[in-house]
Amino acid sequence: MNLLGAQIISATPVAVEIGLELRPDLEQQHGFIHAGVAWTIADNAAGFATQSLLAVEDGVLTVELKINLLAPAKGQRLIARAQLLRAGRRLTVARSDVYAATGSTETHVATALGTFMTMNGLADKT
Amino acid sequence: MNLLGAQIISATPVAVEIGLELRPDLEQQHGFIHAGVAWTIADNAAGFATQSLLAVEDGVLTVELKINLLAPAKGQRLIARAQLLRAGRRLTVARSDVYAATGSTETHVATALGTFMTMNGLADKT
Amino acid sequence: MNLLGAQIISATPVAVEIGLELRPDLEQQHGFIHAGVAWTIADNAAGFATQSLLAVEDGVLTVELKINLLAPAKGQRLIARAQLLRAGRRLTVARSDVYAATGSTETHVATALGTFMTMNGLADKT
Amino acid sequence: MNLLGAQIISATPVAVEIGLELRPDLEQQHGFIHAGVAWTIADNAAGFATQSLLAVEDGVLTVELKINLLAPAKGQRLIARAQLLRAGRRLTVARSDVYAATGSTETHVATALGTFMTMNGLADKT
Repeated sequence: MNLLGAQIISATPVAVEIGLELRPDLEQQHGFIHAGVAWTIADNAAGFATQSLLAVEDGVLTVELKINLLAPAKGQRLIARAQLLRAGRRLTVARSDVYAATGSTETHVATALGTFMTMNGLADKT
Repeated sequence: MNLLGAQIISATPVAVEIGLELRPDLEQQHGFIHAGVAWTIADNAAGFATQSLLAVEDGVLTVELKINLLAPAKGQRLIARAQLLRAGRRLTVARSDVYAATGSTETHVATALGTFMTMNGLADKT
Repeated sequence: MNLLGAQIISATPVAVEIGLELRPDLEQQHGFIHAGVAWTIADNAAGFATQSLLAVEDGVLTVELKINLLAPAKGQRLIARAQLLRAGRRLTVARSDVYAATGSTETHVATALGTFMTMNGLADKT
Repeated sequence: MNLLGAQIISATPVAVEIGLELRPDLEQQHGFIHAGVAWTIADNAAGFATQSLLAVEDGVLTVELKINLLAPAKGQRLIARAQLLRAGRRLTVARSDVYAATGSTETHVATALGTFMTMNGLADKT
């Protein structure tokens, strides 16, 4: 989160929204935002959604996350919205959608689906 | 590539190796390398492997890429090795494995599988 | 579709629902419906959703499809509902959710995300 | 396994090979083997590879499995070869490759990557 500068916009249990102001150094060779940035923000949103259901001393690790890139990401901000599909004691499954926004116009640029593991007693250090 | 500072180590048709010197700003909250960095280097290696078979004026876009994180990534360098499993006219399928290395010791930290699309006439601008 | 006996319940452009009456021979070793049946019905629903936007002479091939299993599948029927996330000229991205139903009670048992390719002139022979 | 008629060809710890004689009822609309059959045999091989490292009273459940279809599957037999990439106490990550064979000629038709969970005390009933 620090490297990219992403910030939590809103968070309710099982739904989290993260926003990231786009900067030139996050672009890849074709002038679009690098897919790795979309993957990271999708992962962050899903991880926070998982975290929101856990005890304060527990942490979250990403087991796996697949992303499909739907459209080139261009704009002022990148937004990720995550939703829990299954919240288990050990494993959580979350979907995370990424949008590129300019003003109030949003384009759906990526969708991700992944698995997250609860790490008992391993709280985030942030 | 620029943001992270990754570099191509070696490249033969259908097999590419990329290396990245690890830095504190690439770490996530548990002191390990952020999974987004592993995803990005896996994607880069697979994209370069795809590119290596194309005409100079053609480019590559990632359609989708799934990553499984196998172990925490800690070390001096992150290395991604990609291999083409199918090289089609339009779509290429590649596997990319990521290793964290300290000296000559390597740990397999992630494995990725994805689909890449040839963009005729859209060469990389780098 | 023939081996399993799945049937289309409803279909509108970009959203398709498929139903399958469950039978003992579709169960795996723990008494639940085999995950391969869930994958197949998820794939079928997404493929039909893709097909619904194409010309009659065009066909659809699955490029890749990932499934996350959310809960054991037990019940009278298995239902898959697919939704298109991106409908391109060549590639379509679809999400497909699978539910096990007994009477009017549904359990969300699996979620899938995949990529489908248009095959111009290769219409389904069914 | 019963519905499809797949059989274990060989199994060593962390590597399993499964074979399936192809039959007309496993074909889809284009005359090729249905992708669901490839997914199922890939899943079975990876599940058996995971099982091979467990105590006899423990079972295996598929958490998620992604498959990329590389070529149309046609032939006399379908073969899946699985390999463990990470064998943890709870979670195992496996790769599974599927080949269509006619005589001694093999075509690589699919590759899968997935996560499997150990179910302590839940042995397979087969």
